[in-house]
Amino acid sequence: MLARFAERIAARLPAAAIVTDRDAIAPWETDWRRRYHGHAELLLAPATVDEVQAIVATARAEGVALVPQGGNTSMVGGATPPADGSAAILSLRRLNAIRSIDAEAGLAVAEAGVILATLHAAAAAHGRRFPLSLGAKGSATIGGLVSTNAGGTQVLRFGTMRGLVAGIEAVLPDGSRHDGLAALKKDNRGYDLTQLLIGAEGTLGIVTAATLRLVPAVAGRTVAWAGVASPDAAMTLLRRFQRTTPALESFELLPAESLDAVLAYLPDARAPLASAHPWHVLIEVTDDDAPDGAAAVVERVLGAAIADGLAGDATIAASETQAEAFWRIRESISDAERATGPAAQHDIAVPVEAMPRFMIEAAAACEARFPGTRASGFGHLGDGNVHFHVRAAPGTDPADWYARQVPVVSAFVHDLVVAAGGTISAEHGIGQMKRDELERLAPPARLAALRAIRAAFDPGELMNPGKLVTLAPPGNPQ
Amino acid sequence: MLARFAERIAARLPAAAIVTDRDAIAPWETDWRRRYHGHAELLLAPATVDEVQAIVATARAEGVALVPQGGNTSMVGGATPPADGSAAILSLRRLNAIRSIDAEAGLAVAEAGVILATLHAAAAAHGRRFPLSLGAKGSATIGGLVSTNAGGTQVLRFGTMRGLVAGIEAVLPDGSRHDGLAALKKDNRGYDLTQLLIGAEGTLGIVTAATLRLVPAVAGRTVAWAGVASPDAAMTLLRRFQRTTPALESFELLPAESLDAVLAYLPDARAPLASAHPWHVLIEVTDDDAPDGAAAVVERVLGAAIADGLAGDATIAASETQAEAFWRIRESISDAERATGPAAQHDIAVPVEAMPRFMIEAAAACEARFPGTRASGFGHLGDGNVHFHVRAAPGTDPADWYARQVPVVSAFVHDLVVAAGGTISAEHGIGQMKRDELERLAPPARLAALRAIRAAFDPGELMNPGKLVTLAPPGNPQ
Repeated sequence: MLARFAERIAARLPAAAIVTDRDAIAPWETDWRRRYHGHAELLLAPATVDEVQAIVATARAEGVALVPQGGNTSMVGGATPPADGSAAILSLRRLNAIRSIDAEAGLAVAEAGVILATLHAAAAAHGRRFPLSLGAKGSATIGGLVSTNAGGTQVLRFGTMRGLVAGIEAVLPDGSRHDGLAALKKDNRGYDLTQLLIGAEGTLGIVTAATLRLVPAVAGRTVAWAGVASPDAAMTLLRRFQRTTPALESFELLPAESLDAVLAYLPDARAPLASAHPWHVLIEVTDDDAPDGAAAVVERVLGAAIADGLAGDATIAASETQAEAFWRIRESISDAERATGPAAQHDIAVPVEAMPRFMIEAAAACEARFPGTRASGFGHLGDGNVHFHVRAAPGTDPADWYARQVPVVSAFVHDLVVAAGGTISAEHGIGQMKRDELERLAPPARLAALRAIRAAFDPGELMNPGKLVTLAPPGNPQ
Repeated sequence: MLARFAERIAARLPAAAIVTDRDAIAPWETDWRRRYHGHAELLLAPATVDEVQAIVATARAEGVALVPQGGNTSMVGGATPPADGSAAILSLRRLNAIRSIDAEAGLAVAEAGVILATLHAAAAAHGRRFPLSLGAKGSATIGGLVSTNAGGTQVLRFGTMRGLVAGIEAVLPDGSRHDGLAALKKDNRGYDLTQLLIGAEGTLGIVTAATLRLVPAVAGRTVAWAGVASPDAAMTLLRRFQRTTPALESFELLPAESLDAVLAYLPDARAPLASAHPWHVLIEVTDDDAPDGAAAVVERVLGAAIADGLAGDATIAASETQAEAFWRIRESISDAERATGPAAQHDIAVPVEAMPRFMIEAAAACEARFPGTRASGFGHLGDGNVHFHVRAAPGTDPADWYARQVPVVSAFVHDLVVAAGGTISAEHGIGQMKRDELERLAPPARLAALRAIRAAFDPGELMNPGKLVTLAPPGNPQ
């Protein structure tokens, strides 16, 4: 099938869009964390939407599977092809024009292959910003960010991609083009296909472009660091900030051990506070909506928190350099903890109000159930989303940990999350990594609905097969 | 089929949930504007979600259609049963508990039958508000508002229901219960069923409850009225307000003739401005985010607009009574225009920036194409959503106008909207009124996707049949 598909595609697409060279394909067969390894004989890199349509229509006609790929920065193996070589990789990286930026309307139309950092720069050149950012911004593409409903550190104020996408253009699995780019603030013509395509992980069609909301550029920001006694205290502090200023952009929580891990990992990093605290909070407020300046607001709220004992100590970054240093601590936690030994990481969410209690109780339950392990969470407290890490007991064999113990630990954590009414995937998606856990834990009504929608769009499961949910339940022949 | 269904239901539901009395059913067989007349032998009014499940499961087993109904305030015949008596009405009005209000988290869980005004009052009792309102607030229910993605006059700031719903509980067409009430700010477990059910007009399942976002109660508001030369000038004024304050809640545009119609219709109404202007703008800003008070902001922006000629004149309501009087003018336009003679009304949207030009050009095109008619638009300028009315030429026979001329006029208007990249339904939905126009004007890819989704959930088209989109395209046997 693949050979005939390749032949038909060669007749329809320019040579530049067809990659068969093994060395050129190899980097895209493995996810960036090197956990999933696939194989593809063919990588297609269309430069126009017409070419995407030709590829998708031909693939359907020939029964060939396609694995869409942007920056290949999935945390859940969502863009890695199957190992059996049955699929072609469909790279959207060459479809990378910023079609328009309308500063007055606050809208940009960007093609799927536009890299997030490129969009940031383009918006800035128009006095605007696209208020979503994450560590992979130098690689992650708009198509992938849309298809995974990406989050990041500014969700607290602006929401995930779901709230920032005003319209989508996509090639549906039958090869037809869905043109939904018009930014209509109200549109009640039935089911919202834009929202359906966001977070669909490429299973319902190939996102080729998106209309994205821009916000005014920021005049400045105030970044602060506070030490608190507990996640509960951090939540109270968060609510005070939310009552005080709409310009609160980030509110990140981390335990002392995460800070210690970073300080050990980065020799030139310094603790923001001289005193020790069990928990730390990183706060960012922008200047745009605070007429007397963000710094005054932050100082007032933190001053009151110290005065009434809610915060043990706090400091405001005195310069942009210091602000960057605070953020560097937060952004280095994953790498730093990885350096301390093997761990099981979980991207989970529960209702915001329930998170402080969940963090404490889940960590205690994990440590009791798996003696010697250390469990803790850090991350986006205001989103109810923490990255919950369980570090292996000292001396654990890493190979045994990852192969045998992590699945048991993760199942235990996921059970706790479900019991708390939460989600086993807050911002990373399902991909292939969490597919079986979704199957195990999602209510049957939800799984049936996901399957019905997938089958309605792509009965042959040719679009990113094996990701998110399979059409045949496990145990049944596929 | 219906008799056997009724028999089985009688065995499973309490008597209070089953209505067969003709007089009791009659008011619910006709839409409130009395344009659509249906017939139903049976009205079911469950008081629990279990009862809804029993009804839906039994209906599917017996092949009986259900027409869900809340306050019966659809503008597009969306809740009126078919005329052939083949469907039962499923009224959600008795499922009307407010299950919880969490002021701190800013969340309320309300069942489908809760009336909007009741929710407003309950939120106010907790120092919060639910920031969506519309003329039918005394009748419209949460289930209907969710299922139609209702809009209203505060969309500018808070968005439609789509932005205010944090979670949904629904009974799916196979009788299973989807519990998606947990308010997770991040949840990437595949397709967003909450967003899919919003605006689905009851075709994908019965919404039984929703988790809704609340915002802080308002300390006060400033309501102003300005006279401007054109929709373009109004748009410039809107952008100035948006740059100045995030607390801009409403920005409604109306032409002089709409104001004149209201003044003629309401004997005790007075023009807000002494001078005449071709266009008028009603502005509301709340106090919550303006530290120096909303009035100061409004005064500053309007003062500058008068000084540089953008506005001809402007006034700020001196009291809450006067503010109410301004709003009464806006809310009386539809009734007032109806009193001046027959008209064709259209709930349309185009991209916000395109609306001023569209209003002028579409009105001119209509009047040229249908001599003697008068066309104008009024409404939510900041949403790109106007209610575009074409009034019949003087002396037109109303019966002939509605039966023969309105379809031609509306098709003409809809063609203009589509050419401008807009939508033929901004906030009212499709229902039965716009179904054929959606069929005529939507791109085939979009229609195919809508049908595929509907069929995936409800292959027998038993849930609100004949609304939104039918499974069989017109011309094919159904």
